[in-house]
Amino acid sequence: MNSQDSIEPEPRRYRLSEIARIISGELSGNDDLLITGVSDVEEAEEGDIVFAENDRFLRQAINSRASAIVAPLNTPDTNKAMIRVMAPRRAFISIIELFADAPRKPAGVHPSALISPTARIGQGVCIGPNVVIEDDVVIKDGSVIMANCFIGYGCTINEDCMFYPNVTLYHGVRIGKRVILHSGAVIGADGFGYMFIDDQHRKIPQIGGVIIGDDVEIGCNTTVDRAKTGMTVVGNGTKIDNLVQVGHNCKIGPNCILIAQTGLAGSVQLGQGVILGGQTGLKDHVRIGDGAIVMAQAGVFGDIPPQAVVSGYPARPHRQRLRQEAAYENLPELAKRVKSLEKLITELQQRIEDRQEEA
Amino acid sequence: MNSQDSIEPEPRRYRLSEIARIISGELSGNDDLLITGVSDVEEAEEGDIVFAENDRFLRQAINSRASAIVAPLNTPDTNKAMIRVMAPRRAFISIIELFADAPRKPAGVHPSALISPTARIGQGVCIGPNVVIEDDVVIKDGSVIMANCFIGYGCTINEDCMFYPNVTLYHGVRIGKRVILHSGAVIGADGFGYMFIDDQHRKIPQIGGVIIGDDVEIGCNTTVDRAKTGMTVVGNGTKIDNLVQVGHNCKIGPNCILIAQTGLAGSVQLGQGVILGGQTGLKDHVRIGDGAIVMAQAGVFGDIPPQAVVSGYPARPHRQRLRQEAAYENLPELAKRVKSLEKLITELQQRIEDRQEEA
Amino acid sequence: MNSQDSIEPEPRRYRLSEIARIISGELSGNDDLLITGVSDVEEAEEGDIVFAENDRFLRQAINSRASAIVAPLNTPDTNKAMIRVMAPRRAFISIIELFADAPRKPAGVHPSALISPTARIGQGVCIGPNVVIEDDVVIKDGSVIMANCFIGYGCTINEDCMFYPNVTLYHGVRIGKRVILHSGAVIGADGFGYMFIDDQHRKIPQIGGVIIGDDVEIGCNTTVDRAKTGMTVVGNGTKIDNLVQVGHNCKIGPNCILIAQTGLAGSVQLGQGVILGGQTGLKDHVRIGDGAIVMAQAGVFGDIPPQAVVSGYPARPHRQRLRQEAAYENLPELAKRVKSLEKLITELQQRIEDRQEEA
Repeated sequence: MNSQDSIEPEPRRYRLSEIARIISGELSGNDDLLITGVSDVEEAEEGDIVFAENDRFLRQAINSRASAIVAPLNTPDTNKAMIRVMAPRRAFISIIELFADAPRKPAGVHPSALISPTARIGQGVCIGPNVVIEDDVVIKDGSVIMANCFIGYGCTINEDCMFYPNVTLYHGVRIGKRVILHSGAVIGADGFGYMFIDDQHRKIPQIGGVIIGDDVEIGCNTTVDRAKTGMTVVGNGTKIDNLVQVGHNCKIGPNCILIAQTGLAGSVQLGQGVILGGQTGLKDHVRIGDGAIVMAQAGVFGDIPPQAVVSGYPARPHRQRLRQEAAYENLPELAKRVKSLEKLITELQQRIEDRQEEA
Repeated sequence: MNSQDSIEPEPRRYRLSEIARIISGELSGNDDLLITGVSDVEEAEEGDIVFAENDRFLRQAINSRASAIVAPLNTPDTNKAMIRVMAPRRAFISIIELFADAPRKPAGVHPSALISPTARIGQGVCIGPNVVIEDDVVIKDGSVIMANCFIGYGCTINEDCMFYPNVTLYHGVRIGKRVILHSGAVIGADGFGYMFIDDQHRKIPQIGGVIIGDDVEIGCNTTVDRAKTGMTVVGNGTKIDNLVQVGHNCKIGPNCILIAQTGLAGSVQLGQGVILGGQTGLKDHVRIGDGAIVMAQAGVFGDIPPQAVVSGYPARPHRQRLRQEAAYENLPELAKRVKSLEKLITELQQRIEDRQEEA
Repeated sequence: MNSQDSIEPEPRRYRLSEIARIISGELSGNDDLLITGVSDVEEAEEGDIVFAENDRFLRQAINSRASAIVAPLNTPDTNKAMIRVMAPRRAFISIIELFADAPRKPAGVHPSALISPTARIGQGVCIGPNVVIEDDVVIKDGSVIMANCFIGYGCTINEDCMFYPNVTLYHGVRIGKRVILHSGAVIGADGFGYMFIDDQHRKIPQIGGVIIGDDVEIGCNTTVDRAKTGMTVVGNGTKIDNLVQVGHNCKIGPNCILIAQTGLAGSVQLGQGVILGGQTGLKDHVRIGDGAIVMAQAGVFGDIPPQAVVSGYPARPHRQRLRQEAAYENLPELAKRVKSLEKLITELQQRIEDRQEEA
């Protein structure tokens, strides 16, 4: 690809000494080291700065690809550059903010946007080209709706939200504060429900709504269906990745993590802080307890207790599944061993028979 | 989330006595009970009315969370409110219609819609803002195309369809009557086919079309690819959930149900009334017989006979899979038992050897 | 569905004699045979012409549903019509081009398109209705951007690309030459990364970019996330199907094939010519060697060597998995056999005990 004359955004980078100054920390290591990003320890790359508030994290940080570590005051020297601070968490949040790219907003309301006269638009709201906003929509101060979004009648969007281009909200959806919706996300479409009467699938009316809590982020092309009656709910602080399906009447607690391509059938309930790995599937009406982890590709067909870690199909405690998988790997060999045993037993029986005859 | 001043759509609700009057039924139980929705028995919630036309359904209804039951005339009293009628099915269809929310249509053709002069638009067709309709498109009476949809050249959309915002039809797609397409659905994109010749994947021309039958509903962000040659077909009355992939040249029979995130490779054939659970995957060219059920997350690599119920990877009859899963759960224990057997056999052999030596 | 008065695109068809003339080949069989499409052998239907450059492909072609075969000069007669040529590969590429449907382009730049004055638009670029092109975008000669696409600031689109309606590019994405993006594809959204600090998931800044190589095709509603830092890369000639998720910082080599609904977590590395079957899932940071094949629905949790063929959960060499599956199918029977063995052993032990007592 010839991109010699493309305009590339200047990558953000800071000298380690600058960062140390900003967070009022003590620097050990190369002052001039260029830091190009901030990362969790698992995903760190060269140029990243990471965070280690205790010994375990420090060991991980030392073994990571990161170039520098933010650590508490009394931390010993390591192989990496280090900034020592009183309150490493607070310092690290400052560094995250330093690198965060504020998305460029459209300026004000674009003249091509079609906004119902009954919509109420707050202060400082930005609305991009070709956006359609239907009757009785409320958009509160500071929210940004980028190009080609569709906001159905009666929706409420609270303060400081960010909708990337081409988001669709069906009617009556309620969105919290500081919610980020990525392109292609569809919130509030009909749940999937039919009854087969007289040789036809008849649509069960989907007349409930959707509530998205504060500080939620929803990925590209993810779909959250409206409730049959009542509400589909995504709790405060929950983060949903791309291409996820949330069925009608699901109740997702606060601070959950749903990784890409996960699917929740109708009326699933997640507690708080639940983590669903990529491509997991949850049967309708299952309940997942607080802090439970469902590992990637698992199929959940029954309730999961709080703090459990489950995997596999059907999902079972992960340690149990690991033992089963290990046995499965050896299954052909086990079958051979059973075959040998059968042969041995037959021989033994024969020998006993022979000796009985002899006797 | 602060939603105190949001405008919420008034939830639909009827007193049980009103419903009894509308369907000319005999009411037993609280006249004033508020019914807020209609449901199948499995998904019923408090406030719902459900339908029980025989003893089995009645038992399920009694045990469900529903508040009221529609049942045949001679049904005995239960713990729930009940309306008895001559023809419960017909009555229940009336109740469904009572609750169904007619979607608000855009009024007529919005001035921002771009419609080719060669397109033929029927009576009472509604077309929303920013819709693009290319040459030679036919849209028949009563169909609704909401904002930001794109209809490629030569498409035909029959009577009384409903396209939610942001649906894309590639060229030449044929859509039946009363078809509902949800936001983000893409119909008629190129099938996925390449030949690797001289170190390049060369695109196999995808020059066929797509036919969507009458009364089909297709979910958000679902994709139905056009045929290589000939047609990809979705049969009358089939319902497809969100994020489903239908490959080129698939032939889906009438009244099938495809649950979310299911994927059909090329040239799959489904009979009538087939049910595919969520996240199932079907290999190219497999044929699924009438009335077969593929359970959630199954991987289908071969043909499935009519009425079969299959699950697992690779998909097998569900009862067989349940037995295998049960055995799998006990696999580590089975391995231990084989190990003990081996030890026992060795001991026995030794004892026989010893006695032979003694003798 | 009543489609009697719909306008259908005329299917492309050629007499076999015409095709023979165009590729200067020797025809054996019916001159008047109508050829309606071109295909690989596996997916051939009646009316298709296929390609057989050696004995193995010839046998497959003979057993396929194809109507005609293109083959080398000395190929013997078969049951199918045949065109013999000196260079069958080159001839077949000509036939592919014969059938390929050049997509109809919008004429020039539609007046409703909103193009920043700082964007640089090349010669012969076509831009459809309602397209939004932000600041500093570069679109090179011959590229086509269809209706409702959104191109974020600072993107570069090289020569002769084809974007179908409703594609979204976030800012700063770099697209190669001859790239095809299908409807609903979203390139460059934020990667999914958070750190849980002080009871909140805090967003890790996603400040890298995306590079899509030359001759890449990306399917409908597929999502390719931008890198945390650095670049997410899709190599030249790679083809990605519908509804695929490519996580942040993935490096996909050239000429890979990613089939529908596959998901790559962050920082996955694919070599060249890797094939990922439908609904496969790859854990973050795994590396897949050149030419490896991951079969449908597999879950990859570790590195895969070049040329390996893997399947299952967790992914293992396919032959090993087949043996394990075969044993799994017989698992309930194996459990029964172990049970019988246990009974037999007990009996044997008893007999030996008895005889010892006798003795």
